[in-house]
Amino acid sequence: MSIVDRLAAARGELPCDLALRNARLVNVISGEIYPSDIAVHDRHVVGLGDGYEGAREVDLAGKFVTPGLIDAHVHIESSLVTPPEFARAVLPHGVTTVITDPHEIANVLGMEGIHYMLEQAKGGQLNIFVMASSCVPATHMETAGAQLEASDLAPLLSHAWVPGLAELMNYPGVALGDEGMLDKLTLFKDRVLDGHAPAMTGKLLNAYAAAGVQSEHECTTVEEAREKLRLGLTIFIREGSTTRNLLPLLPLITAENHSAICFCTDDRAPADLIDEGSIDFMLRQAVAAGIDPVMAIRMGSYNTARHFGLRKYGAVTPGRYADLLVVPDLYDFHAQQVYRGGELVAEDGRMASNRPPARKIDLPSTVNIRGDSLDFTIPARGEKIRVIGKVLDQVYTQHLVERARIVAGCAVSDTERDILKFAMIERHHASGKIGLGFIKGFGLQQGAIAGTVAHDHHNLAVIGVDDSSMRAAALALEKLGGGLVAAEGERILASLPLPVAGLLSEAPIEQVRADYATMTRAAQLLGSPLPDPFMVMSFMGLEVIPRLKLTDHGLVDVERFEVVDLFLK
Amino acid sequence: MSIVDRLAAARGELPCDLALRNARLVNVISGEIYPSDIAVHDRHVVGLGDGYEGAREVDLAGKFVTPGLIDAHVHIESSLVTPPEFARAVLPHGVTTVITDPHEIANVLGMEGIHYMLEQAKGGQLNIFVMASSCVPATHMETAGAQLEASDLAPLLSHAWVPGLAELMNYPGVALGDEGMLDKLTLFKDRVLDGHAPAMTGKLLNAYAAAGVQSEHECTTVEEAREKLRLGLTIFIREGSTTRNLLPLLPLITAENHSAICFCTDDRAPADLIDEGSIDFMLRQAVAAGIDPVMAIRMGSYNTARHFGLRKYGAVTPGRYADLLVVPDLYDFHAQQVYRGGELVAEDGRMASNRPPARKIDLPSTVNIRGDSLDFTIPARGEKIRVIGKVLDQVYTQHLVERARIVAGCAVSDTERDILKFAMIERHHASGKIGLGFIKGFGLQQGAIAGTVAHDHHNLAVIGVDDSSMRAAALALEKLGGGLVAAEGERILASLPLPVAGLLSEAPIEQVRADYATMTRAAQLLGSPLPDPFMVMSFMGLEVIPRLKLTDHGLVDVERFEVVDLFLK
Repeated sequence: MSIVDRLAAARGELPCDLALRNARLVNVISGEIYPSDIAVHDRHVVGLGDGYEGAREVDLAGKFVTPGLIDAHVHIESSLVTPPEFARAVLPHGVTTVITDPHEIANVLGMEGIHYMLEQAKGGQLNIFVMASSCVPATHMETAGAQLEASDLAPLLSHAWVPGLAELMNYPGVALGDEGMLDKLTLFKDRVLDGHAPAMTGKLLNAYAAAGVQSEHECTTVEEAREKLRLGLTIFIREGSTTRNLLPLLPLITAENHSAICFCTDDRAPADLIDEGSIDFMLRQAVAAGIDPVMAIRMGSYNTARHFGLRKYGAVTPGRYADLLVVPDLYDFHAQQVYRGGELVAEDGRMASNRPPARKIDLPSTVNIRGDSLDFTIPARGEKIRVIGKVLDQVYTQHLVERARIVAGCAVSDTERDILKFAMIERHHASGKIGLGFIKGFGLQQGAIAGTVAHDHHNLAVIGVDDSSMRAAALALEKLGGGLVAAEGERILASLPLPVAGLLSEAPIEQVRADYATMTRAAQLLGSPLPDPFMVMSFMGLEVIPRLKLTDHGLVDVERFEVVDLFLK
Repeated sequence: MSIVDRLAAARGELPCDLALRNARLVNVISGEIYPSDIAVHDRHVVGLGDGYEGAREVDLAGKFVTPGLIDAHVHIESSLVTPPEFARAVLPHGVTTVITDPHEIANVLGMEGIHYMLEQAKGGQLNIFVMASSCVPATHMETAGAQLEASDLAPLLSHAWVPGLAELMNYPGVALGDEGMLDKLTLFKDRVLDGHAPAMTGKLLNAYAAAGVQSEHECTTVEEAREKLRLGLTIFIREGSTTRNLLPLLPLITAENHSAICFCTDDRAPADLIDEGSIDFMLRQAVAAGIDPVMAIRMGSYNTARHFGLRKYGAVTPGRYADLLVVPDLYDFHAQQVYRGGELVAEDGRMASNRPPARKIDLPSTVNIRGDSLDFTIPARGEKIRVIGKVLDQVYTQHLVERARIVAGCAVSDTERDILKFAMIERHHASGKIGLGFIKGFGLQQGAIAGTVAHDHHNLAVIGVDDSSMRAAALALEKLGGGLVAAEGERILASLPLPVAGLLSEAPIEQVRADYATMTRAAQLLGSPLPDPFMVMSFMGLEVIPRLKLTDHGLVDVERFEVVDLFLK
């Protein structure tokens, strides 16, 4: 089939593959809703209006037809599953296209990680556009699995599924004109440049925009979002699992500015993807809060396609791909049928076809630990120590100073005061590097928890009451090739293998969701009061968010932006 | 200067080149108007807000600042002057960017004509984006100076100033899947594809859109425009010299759909450019008719930049070029100052600098006539002839049948019935081809008028009372290398040389405008009652517009789409 056939079908000279009859078309371009038939041929919409004959015809009896939803910014890795599994999670929710930043896997595997995502996306039922990760590693105070310079990213420029440069999280570097950042910006200057500049304001923000950045998804207040939108940044309103910005930002949206606003999810855990949904969840929330449904649908589809220059996506018009949804009620947005490229891929919240066999792509082992690095002993060199203080519902921390509990000349965990030993073990190059410190707020009374998901370097994080539990947990992860583990002494209580880069499972998402719940329960049995201790732990090594964090280089005082000693003089 | 300096200026760490103070900023992205300073450095806007110090500072005392205006579709050739002169005409009207289709010069000179436009645009004060002409020649029933296939256009794909493929005027060819048209569409499939499908509707229009066409500037009624907009075509509302579609189309525009609407001028004569203006004229008309000024400005700037993917144009935000206007009154839109790339290029309706010396680009002679082709004798082969009937204020014609006036066995002009001899002489390849016929409505009582502007092939058109006047006029044009001429017998009454491709003068536009008025008066002295006989004549050879036209192949019955005999059997 070809354009010749599509034009013949458009002219009505041959029956189209599919005729959707008696739809109420939500036309996101004209901003209208009106009755129309929709002719689909060879993956594309070819005609609107009456009188098309279809090889297959479906009477929609007045149901709405909208464009397939588009997620403007998502890290697929946060779903803990592979792209095909992620697709199975979001397609039933009406999401037919995502723009992903493979930042996590790129930090582990570099270009090989980015190519893994591109390869896994290929030929699948979800349109997955992959942005070129811009900040690998995040800073010089960590050891990531790779380092990506502009020259590494250059080959991606010609890739049809790479629209541009992913979130420029080194926002001080961009605003201050860091050479490596400018090289990347220059390389991608004619493409889409995604931003990430939480709470940036005033002249520094002007500089960030002047560098050519085009979007921002980190806004948490209307005031912040308004300043950024006025500077020309398209606002991606985000509703992640932990970062829930939609309701606070709703007052930003007006009829006059909404064409510069898109919806995104950024990071969604398996349970939230399955139970709440994705962009469709945002549509339901927005409309329930009073946003006009057509405006909401635009922010969840057309605006995003337009922002990324995806001319064949985001609307139901001739010449575009037939990515479209049948929706009975715009005020309670659920996609009854999901068509992607004219093919029915999901119906009534379930995939229309069985899970395809996983496509195996060989990746190198990414959990490489030097045995002698698993020494968690901390000889006391003083009485006072810096302690990372976990803050409720936040990924930033407190910078605490506490008295060390010293046993036999060594600083050890103190369950009474909930001060636990915390180690970050370099796991990419078996360098033997290890950062050691203490953390408050995890509440373990015995054992240890460990994981290879630790933003953004994804080294091996362990928090524990005693060194042997910590060691057992770390060794178990090495054996699994990555994942999450809870251990007590030598005994492994529970584990969730994440063999792909130590980040992703190859199991079905429902299975991963169940296993993840088991992991949480295991940590709670060890005494943690946290609802999601593994998620919290994964952010305790992220040294671009204040105030005290732990990398394999040691404790990082984020405000001073330097590595500091555990012991105070 | 570089991005490093711009970021430093944005951060306020060095004084910017120019600080515009106390502006009321028309923010076309947020849809707001609010007080702001604007910092400009190294051709770019680098900051909005307070506290920027400028090497130069201008207090705007509350005047509005808007983006520079953008013309979505214009044939510069219609101004009869070179691109630098055209720039001098539109910049004082606040137009800082145009997207041009070099269709006329491409029909004469092929790729050399397109490169001439690109070269003449280079380094000038107006941003001139040049679309790749898609339909050279218009049909097989004419001899143009060149024929452009997809392979000829391919090198333009990598040109920074070529956003896409120009108006696809062979709209039946596109909708019917003509192979040559599809080759061009395929070549430019990831770029902007401009449309041109007057009065097309229904399934054929669906096919036209399904081919990937993205815009349309030929709408004359709200109904037509609404159908096209709903099919995803961005509507370029046009206000040319003869085609005045703005007021009839105003009821189309709504707050909900206006982001899919842009303004364009298509074809404007020198006098209209100077007296009325360009896109600014459209803004004044639209706002006077009740359109919200911010919406009008969007349609005249931001929407067009967005449609063409020109990320650094169309709004006043950091990172974009400082193309901006100081406007005292949004309800009577006149640009008091025009900045392009941060430089003041026009003020109070005049250019800020003197006319730069013309850049001479050598082009081949384009008026090549075989001497023996100048035989206008029409031996009578019957009594009835087909006659082109000019229709008031239209470029389409009537297909008349009249009794021939026969003298000495030859059909000749008949001034009593206003049936004049009309010749179209092939002038590109000196092939000797000539089309002969008769036309009604020009009213000459003696002499002849002739011109090398004759859409789209731009052969040499002559209308006259007697053969010797016609011959004298044609020979005069050969001598001039193209232009417009009025002759009586051997005497040349007036002439306007258009030495560039027989289409453009290298004189200042004011001079061309005055000379053009002289030409009109000369034709009127010869008896023509038409207000603009040369303009009308230039469309009498355009065989893609009904009903009867004359090319060098002979009379074309446009409805039958074939060459027909002058004499009826």
